[in-house]
Amino acid sequence: MRILVQKFGGTSVATLDHMRKAQLKVVAGLQKMDKVLAVLSARSGETNRLLELAREWSPDPDPAELDLLVSTGEQISVALFTMLLKDAGIRARSFTGRQIGIRTDRVFGKARIRDIDGEIIAKALLDHDVLVVAGFQGVTDDGRITTLGRGGSDTSAVALAAVVQAELCEIFTDVEGVFTTDPNLCPQARKLERISYDEMLEMASMGAKVLEIRSVEFAKKFSVPVLVRSTFSEAPGTFVTQEDSRMEHVLVSGIAYDKDQARISLRSVPDRPGVAAAIFTPLAQANLSVDMIVQNSSHDGVTDMNFTISRKELPRAVRIMKAIQKDLGATDILYDDNVAKVSAIGVGMRNHSGVAATAFSALRQENINILMISTSEIKISCIIEDKYTELAVRTLHEAFHLAQPDVVSA
Amino acid sequence: MRILVQKFGGTSVATLDHMRKAQLKVVAGLQKMDKVLAVLSARSGETNRLLELAREWSPDPDPAELDLLVSTGEQISVALFTMLLKDAGIRARSFTGRQIGIRTDRVFGKARIRDIDGEIIAKALLDHDVLVVAGFQGVTDDGRITTLGRGGSDTSAVALAAVVQAELCEIFTDVEGVFTTDPNLCPQARKLERISYDEMLEMASMGAKVLEIRSVEFAKKFSVPVLVRSTFSEAPGTFVTQEDSRMEHVLVSGIAYDKDQARISLRSVPDRPGVAAAIFTPLAQANLSVDMIVQNSSHDGVTDMNFTISRKELPRAVRIMKAIQKDLGATDILYDDNVAKVSAIGVGMRNHSGVAATAFSALRQENINILMISTSEIKISCIIEDKYTELAVRTLHEAFHLAQPDVVSA
Repeated sequence: MRILVQKFGGTSVATLDHMRKAQLKVVAGLQKMDKVLAVLSARSGETNRLLELAREWSPDPDPAELDLLVSTGEQISVALFTMLLKDAGIRARSFTGRQIGIRTDRVFGKARIRDIDGEIIAKALLDHDVLVVAGFQGVTDDGRITTLGRGGSDTSAVALAAVVQAELCEIFTDVEGVFTTDPNLCPQARKLERISYDEMLEMASMGAKVLEIRSVEFAKKFSVPVLVRSTFSEAPGTFVTQEDSRMEHVLVSGIAYDKDQARISLRSVPDRPGVAAAIFTPLAQANLSVDMIVQNSSHDGVTDMNFTISRKELPRAVRIMKAIQKDLGATDILYDDNVAKVSAIGVGMRNHSGVAATAFSALRQENINILMISTSEIKISCIIEDKYTELAVRTLHEAFHLAQPDVVSA
Repeated sequence: MRILVQKFGGTSVATLDHMRKAQLKVVAGLQKMDKVLAVLSARSGETNRLLELAREWSPDPDPAELDLLVSTGEQISVALFTMLLKDAGIRARSFTGRQIGIRTDRVFGKARIRDIDGEIIAKALLDHDVLVVAGFQGVTDDGRITTLGRGGSDTSAVALAAVVQAELCEIFTDVEGVFTTDPNLCPQARKLERISYDEMLEMASMGAKVLEIRSVEFAKKFSVPVLVRSTFSEAPGTFVTQEDSRMEHVLVSGIAYDKDQARISLRSVPDRPGVAAAIFTPLAQANLSVDMIVQNSSHDGVTDMNFTISRKELPRAVRIMKAIQKDLGATDILYDDNVAKVSAIGVGMRNHSGVAATAFSALRQENINILMISTSEIKISCIIEDKYTELAVRTLHEAFHLAQPDVVSA
């Protein structure tokens, strides 16, 4: 039995008109495959409406009750969508997260999926051609409703696809796929035909918000082929899939950026064992997540420690650093939030040298000063002044010839 | 363990402000009893909003999907109310109908409760002082969400009270109790201290919409003491309870009326065995529910059959009667929808004669013509022209001295 999973996001189910377009995608899916699992988000704005209601009721709403409240959003989506399908004569049935057997841990608000009851699905598919499933939600072992956190419907869809060994998991959204960079910043941005899980993870974590990052991890772990495409067009979309030989011939697949960056520098810290732990342990204890960390090489027994953090967390992070400054022996604490991160991402970097040099010289030619650098196997990230963000993205996009189609021959 | 069930209707949970008043009732309840089960309706207007949404989506929404949709209304209520209680330091937890184990049949939209899992409640009461339960909803054996139909939250509350053997089931609403008649029609209407289940059943079925009729049947069947009272005042309310000796001394407890009446007369039907069945079987098959039936005594082998029906069902009923007129041999079919029903209700009638005579002569003195009469052990109903409804209600209210307090001494 060939099963297709289709996930429809908030805008795709926002109105009757939009839902009718989603319905066409389901009908098209049934022509290609035997069965469809349609995973739905809450209608656009619904989750926010419910969160605002909760905030009106309580300054700090009980997380379990908040999940019960918020989970009504997808429940409404699946009920309405199933009505449409049934009116069209399709053998469809709705399922809440609980009804389809998505079991999670007890971390209300950001629960993680533990397992999904494949038997429930198998049994339901005997009598139905389309199972309409509420995304974003699950149930604890003792029957309480949980939610997976923002964007969790992607994770629901990919996890269901893994369990039923779906041929494909289509993520329908309001964009046509994954682009080489943000088309709003760079008109030359081009839609990618395919991208590897690892590249997608870097793109997603950098704020190219097409796919929720946990869903990509899931897809990679269980080798679920994902196709990101638009509900509102016939465009073919972008495959997110295993790395293949075609990808390796491309140096860089995309340019990502993140303006939610603030920088802290601890100057002239005595460079002794344990100094990094002394800095980052209190930040972790305060639940602050540090993004990039750069330590300069040591001169005269002292070093500079630089790191970046989300802008809204800067004041708290500075307070914590000031509290430990004396113990650390740092001469100065400098910080600013006028920085941004631009990154070039591509699995091809593994096998090619010179990518970093190309990036740095392209930025230098535009007189963009690089404040911090960090690299991984498939990514080069630079912290720059945030006023240069758009220019830097366009410059890197051009430097790596991303406006041209993928190289497909060896 | 002394358990109090408190049911809060739609207006009682409509806003944060109203919910705070309901919260005070729960706190007061905890002072009187060990544990409270708070059963909540959807917030005023919410169910209608959801029904309108469904109608926008489908001309004839799938009943199972409609129930899933509509059940979100109470889910929102219980989540919000529990947040309030927890913020006040009360050990509270929310439950959907499914979570508390309210099992129903599969008649979506008007499901009937089959059983409630007392063990779930007993276990939950170990760790919590208040269980906040979504009224109006349950679950089928195979896990689908059902609703009990309009007013079903009353039934949920009474059923829960029966299962936990509650000391009392308080029904909080926006009126102060059960009145001798509609205060809008008759300013002399007086709040009753107590009323028997049977009287309440007659009152409820007549459109005195304080308590949903099924909940009264349930309360009677399981002898659940019910107290109808207002969320918005400290007034003592009305006990709905077993018939007791005090009630028998009161001839009539209340006057009810119902304007949703239309009348059909079949003239000169040959009076042979089976004629009533021939008339009412096709109506029942068309799912039309007939209210009052009066057959005149037979003259010359023919009789007149008169019955009443809901106004909106009149055209269908007339169509069915015309289809069988020839077979019946009726000379004429007359019908009109300008009629109303007024009724005097009281368990005291069982032991007293002359109640009917008092009612008829009171109406005659006001020149109100009685078109049809029907009596039961505890009720006398008259069909009159609907323009006389208000006058008839006031006249009967006065004729039975209902503005005076209950006779409490023998």
